[in-house]
Parts: sequence; structure tokens; C-alpha cells
Amino acid sequence: MIIMMTAFVSQKKTRIIFFGDSITQAGANAGGYIKRVDSMCTAEGMADKYEFIGAGIGGNKVYDLYLRMESDVLAKEPDMVIIYIGVNDVWHKSSSGTGTDADKFERFYQAIIDRLKAKNIKIILCTPAAIGEKTDFSNPQDGDMNEYSNIIRRIAKKNELALVDLRKAFLDHNLRNNPDNKDRGILTTDRVHLNAKGNQLVAEEMWKVIKQAK
Amino acid sequence: MIIMMTAFVSQKKTRIIFFGDSITQAGANAGGYIKRVDSMCTAEGMADKYEFIGAGIGGNKVYDLYLRMESDVLAKEPDMVIIYIGVNDVWHKSSSGTGTDADKFERFYQAIIDRLKAKNIKIILCTPAAIGEKTDFSNPQDGDMNEYSNIIRRIAKKNELALVDLRKAFLDHNLRNNPDNKDRGILTTDRVHLNAKGNQLVAEEMWKVIKQAK
Amino acid sequence: MIIMMTAFVSQKKTRIIFFGDSITQAGANAGGYIKRVDSMCTAEGMADKYEFIGAGIGGNKVYDLYLRMESDVLAKEPDMVIIYIGVNDVWHKSSSGTGTDADKFERFYQAIIDRLKAKNIKIILCTPAAIGEKTDFSNPQDGDMNEYSNIIRRIAKKNELALVDLRKAFLDHNLRNNPDNKDRGILTTDRVHLNAKGNQLVAEEMWKVIKQAK
Amino acid sequence: MIIMMTAFVSQKKTRIIFFGDSITQAGANAGGYIKRVDSMCTAEGMADKYEFIGAGIGGNKVYDLYLRMESDVLAKEPDMVIIYIGVNDVWHKSSSGTGTDADKFERFYQAIIDRLKAKNIKIILCTPAAIGEKTDFSNPQDGDMNEYSNIIRRIAKKNELALVDLRKAFLDHNLRNNPDNKDRGILTTDRVHLNAKGNQLVAEEMWKVIKQAK
Repeated sequence: MIIMMTAFVSQKKTRIIFFGDSITQAGANAGGYIKRVDSMCTAEGMADKYEFIGAGIGGNKVYDLYLRMESDVLAKEPDMVIIYIGVNDVWHKSSSGTGTDADKFERFYQAIIDRLKAKNIKIILCTPAAIGEKTDFSNPQDGDMNEYSNIIRRIAKKNELALVDLRKAFLDHNLRNNPDNKDRGILTTDRVHLNAKGNQLVAEEMWKVIKQAK
Repeated sequence: MIIMMTAFVSQKKTRIIFFGDSITQAGANAGGYIKRVDSMCTAEGMADKYEFIGAGIGGNKVYDLYLRMESDVLAKEPDMVIIYIGVNDVWHKSSSGTGTDADKFERFYQAIIDRLKAKNIKIILCTPAAIGEKTDFSNPQDGDMNEYSNIIRRIAKKNELALVDLRKAFLDHNLRNNPDNKDRGILTTDRVHLNAKGNQLVAEEMWKVIKQAK
Repeated sequence: MIIMMTAFVSQKKTRIIFFGDSITQAGANAGGYIKRVDSMCTAEGMADKYEFIGAGIGGNKVYDLYLRMESDVLAKEPDMVIIYIGVNDVWHKSSSGTGTDADKFERFYQAIIDRLKAKNIKIILCTPAAIGEKTDFSNPQDGDMNEYSNIIRRIAKKNELALVDLRKAFLDHNLRNNPDNKDRGILTTDRVHLNAKGNQLVAEEMWKVIKQAK
Repeated sequence: MIIMMTAFVSQKKTRIIFFGDSITQAGANAGGYIKRVDSMCTAEGMADKYEFIGAGIGGNKVYDLYLRMESDVLAKEPDMVIIYIGVNDVWHKSSSGTGTDADKFERFYQAIIDRLKAKNIKIILCTPAAIGEKTDFSNPQDGDMNEYSNIIRRIAKKNELALVDLRKAFLDHNLRNNPDNKDRGILTTDRVHLNAKGNQLVAEEMWKVIKQAK
């Protein structure tokens, strides 16, 4: 008697947490960038390989992420964390006087990375896309947005981490598609939060990097 | 045969960490409030009972304390921690746009307490004394200073913790000693940092509460 | 021949302009404080003696008043101007980073007075009532609101001008009628803009001073 | 008898007032840009054609210029006024919460122009050069500096006035001479105030436009 066996190796899915602010909170909704990453993944026949979890909370700054690491990230034992933060750290400076100093932004960002690394969790960083879509750098927060993006790029390099450079992707897209130098309506609804095209662009940029992540 | 024994019970000193900002950093210097607490302790014959450690860093806000709890507090295994924070959380709103929102001030403050409680460390809270010494509540940050002090008083009550109400002590002192409604020079050199009298007042208020702490 | 003559001395009405921000703009609407002053005037049989004109524009700060003096005040040849400004000078510091420094507030305020005096126009000053109705001076802007009110009181004294001390009137009212230390709902709808009771209180305070003005 | 006559037409010098902030205040000192314009003028043999007067005051914003137009400009009966303002309107937003909203910046700027035009005074506008010399638009205030410069360019065009585009001149210079993306030390001492090279560049740019002014 011959017994034919097909081995189904029940491979554990790679669990990915998207860790961020209101943009990521909305990203978990229908049409949001996390849902779109999930769809891309399924369309490419990899639905059994990845699991996507949103962990975005409106108004969050880098130190808010640090405060809720244990409960919202580490407790869920992810294999990978995508950090997408920075808009409120810059924006709240002028809207309520409660933004984050550049040096402290870097310190808390590194502290988050250190704790994830200690658990051997893979990490992908993102630059904050936009507060205003004008392409001549005349959006009020462009100076800080460029500087805080520079900080994240440096952190990625120093820690040898993958980077989704959303700020660059948004600027490149707007240079091609925003000839009237509008401050919203191309990739965002309100200068910050993503419309359908914005969610799609973020999803595409992230999915490219997720697939390559070792 | 008679053996005479004198029992020297080598009692471990109560190790107290002063956890705060530049005011506490200066408090560890000669003439500073921590040195004065130490002197009061010695003068009352209790030098063998207490050990005082300064852990203040200039510019710190409540979330900076949270970030360095492990290295600067827990690693030193204190018996008691005196938290003296809040000035920069209010002040940096107007000086650099990087203050702390009231709700987040409360959340991080409680998070610090939770971690100390989990280690059975005694905790004493302080209200922030002053940004300006005028007594008619016309110092620019008086509104927030009163509100953030209210928050700390509520936290103390809710967590059943001892409170050194420096804001009240400073106001009471100035109502008696600042007839010209000056904004500095009574207890501070520059509206915020303590002169000799300010350090002495803080030391007295703290020492009273430390001695009573069970 | 006997000619009977009845002399109708056509007395020119005292023309009063209320010069201010959104509070004064709303004051000209039904139920607003200017309408209520008008009603009080009529009720006391003095409708033929006074004419009331609103000149409030939302968002105005002291320098905005200065800019539109010519067109909105002097061109209308008033006999009296009631200046009611200061809320936005304080508020916009934290809401948009575009408040007014205390020294410049005083300088522009005095410049307005100087130009009115040069035309022999009577002037009544008002302190800004409130940004928040809590009575323990823990409304975020209380420090500046008290200071800018002090400045206006000093200007009134120095220039020997009548003062409607709305800030004091509001605080006194709230100390009697706001036992729960609420930040709105007693005299304002939203911490700043007046509800019916607020409009009534402002009207009463102003009408008292207008009648006494020589 | 022959009478030889040489006609000395006593031509009135063109009186030029430089109207601005601390940069212009320093411009009147030895080595400052106004002194350098004067030297250029003399070197080109036109000393008898122009008279240069500094009217800069530290900390000035556009509305401060408006307030002191009468005393500091019109009273001196200039033929030409060079308006160089904007740095503090942007900078004070973050340093003290007392910057100038973009729409009010434009309104006061236009009001200054209207009053000068009414006196047939020639007007030259300048864009604010820099708050930080980094060339990748990552200086904190770059967004606003670009936007307020855009506003001034629009005002110049709309009013058909000559423009000294210092912001563009500084950026062009730094793109060639600031390869390390430093934030100061190329044309400024402290990111804002001019060093010798900065004063020279401003003088050259202004002198070019002054000579061409009809």
C-alpha cells in the first residue's frame, strides 16, 4: 500500500503593524492605504503570507507612539512594524504650540527603533508626506517637513532600515500632476489626509518595500 | 561568662531621587534645593536615614522624564521618587511651539506613576512653582500654570500620593513679600529658576513632606 | 401782529461708534449688546439723544482697528468711540502664532486714541471680557488676558478716559454664578462670544458709562 | 562785452529712504548695505544725485512700518522708499506667537504702498532674504518665507513696482557657495542678519534697481 502525502507546511503569516497617526487610522478603513496594500497582496497571490494590522491614532506624535508601544505593538507580537509619523510633530507647533522639537523627535524615534530591534522585529520607516501640496515649497510647514524628513532619512541610514520616502513620492507626483500649485486636492483632501489617489500612492510605495524586506 | 552585645542594625538608607528639569538640575549644585534638603536632614540627625540623588535635566518635559525612567531612575533602585515637572510643558508652548497638551501631560504623568508603583517605589508629586512671580495672575503663562497644577493635584488625589504644592507655596510667599507685583527677584532670578530664597523654600516644603512619607 | 414761535432746537444726536472685533460685529445683530444699549436708551426716553453704530469685524486685533480708522470711524464723524479690543491679540498667539506683543498692543492702542483725540472725539475704553469663564484663573489665556487688561486700565488712567472694565464685570458675575468653574455657558457660548446674558451684561456696563460721559 | 556764464543747475538730490527692520537698522552702520550703496554711488560719480537715509528699527513687522510712516518717512519728504520687511512677520510666529497672518501682511503692505503713491513717492520692494541659509528648503521657516516672498512679488506686479528679489538672490548665491548646506555663515552671521558678504550682495542688488528706477 502506498500512501501519498502532500505536506502542507502551515507557514506562519508575516504580521505587519502600521504604526502611526490619523492618516494610518484612516488607512485601515475601506479605501484606506492599509486595505489597498492588503488587496495588492491578495491580487499577487500572497494572501497567506502577510497579515496587516492598523495601529494609527489621530493626533499622535512620535512620543505618543513610544508611550503605547507595549500595548499596541509589542503585545501583538508583530514580525514587522512600519512607522509612519511626523505630521503632527510639525503641525502642532503652529496650530496649538505643542509640536515636537527636532532633537527630541529624533531621540524618541530612535528609542522606538531600539525597542523593536531588541525584539528582532523588522522595521520600515516612512517620511511624512505633506502638509500642503504646493510644489514651490511655499506651504507654511515645508521647512520643518523637509527637515523632519531629513532626520528620518538619516535614522534609516544609520540603523540600516528600509525607507518609504513618501515625502519624495508626493512631491514627484505633484510636480507632474499639480501644475496650478494647489495646496490640496491632488493626493490629499485637506492638505494632510489622503484622498483615494493618495491612499493608492502610499499603498503602492509601501507594498514595494514590504515585498523586498528581508 | 557574660557577653555584651551592641546590635548595630545596618539600616539601608532611604534612597530618594529628585526627578525633574533644569530647576532640579541646579538643585543638585551647592546652594541648590537638594543640597539644602540634605543639610536639613543632617541637621536633624537623620543623615544615616536618607540618601538624596538629583536627576534633573534642563529643558525636560513630562515625556522626557518618561523616556529616561529606566536609565535614570529605575536602574538606580530608589525607594522614593519626587517628580517635579511642568514648567517647560507650559513654557515651550509660547517660546518654541513645543509644549505639551494638557491631556497628554496627564497621560504621561500617570504612565510614570504606574511604572514606579509597579516597583513599589514611593512617589511624591510637586506642582510647578512659577513662570513669573506677579501675584495678580498677569504672568503670561499663569492660566496654564494654574491648570497644569490642577492636573497634578488631581493626579495626586486619584493615586493617593503626597503632594508638595510649590505653586501654592510660591504664591503665598509672594502675596506677603512681593508688594510691587514684580515678576522676578523674590524667589526666582529670572521668573523660573530659583534664587537662594527660592531654593530654601522648595527645600523646606519638600523636607516636610519627605519626613512624613510612610 | 403777533408772531408765535415755538423753537424746535434740532439737537444733533450723539453719534457713538462701537469699534471692535467679532464680539462687536455680533453685537449689532438682534439680541446683540449694541441693540440692547439702543433699547435701554429708548426705554429711558433718550432715543433722540443717541445714535449707535456698530463697527466690529471678526478676527480684528488692535492694529487692524488702527488700519481702518479712517474709513470705518473718522469718515463717519462720530462724537464718541467705544474701543473694545484685545481678545484676538491674546488668543491668536496660541491658535495661529499671530497675536500681538504687549508693548505693541499698547503702542497701537495709544495711536488710536491720539488720532481720536486730535478730532475731539470722546473715547471710552473696554477691557476684553474673557477667553474662558473659569474663575480660578486656570483658563489657558488668563495670564495674558489679565495683563492686557492691566495695560488698557493704565492707558485709560494716563489718558483720563472712561473705562468699561468688562473683564472685572465678567469675573465678578462668574464668581457669583459659576460655582462649578465651567469654562463656558454662563456669559459666553464658546468661552469668548456672548450669549444673551453676556450681551445683556456688556450692554448694561456700557450704557452706565455712556450716560455719564461728558 | 562778453559775459561767460556757466550754468550750475542746482539739481535736488533724489532722497531715498530704506524702510525696514533690524537688517536695515544695521545697514546704516559702517559696512552695512546702505553705506555700501552710498559708496557704489560715489564710486560711479553720482554722489550729487542721491541721498540715502536709513529708517530701520529692530523687531519691526509690516504693521510697525505702517504705524511710523508719517514720522519716519513722509515727514522726511523722500523721493523714493525701499521697503524691506517680512522676516519678523514670519519669524515671530514661532519665536513668540506674534507673527503676521499672510492676508494681513498683504493688506498692510498694500496700505503702505497706497500712502506712498498718494504722495507720488517712487517705491521699490524687496523680498525677505533668509531665515537660515540651507538650500534644500529645510530651514524651519522656509515655507512661510517662500509664501511671503510670493506675496511681495504679486504686490510688485499688481502695483507695477520695481522689485529687488533678495530671497532669490540669496538662494542663487547659496546654491553656488554653500555646498555643505549650512544654515548660516555664508551671507548671514546668525541665519538672518547680514555679514560683510551679505551686506555687499544686498547693496549690489539694490543699487542695480535704484539706478534703473525712473
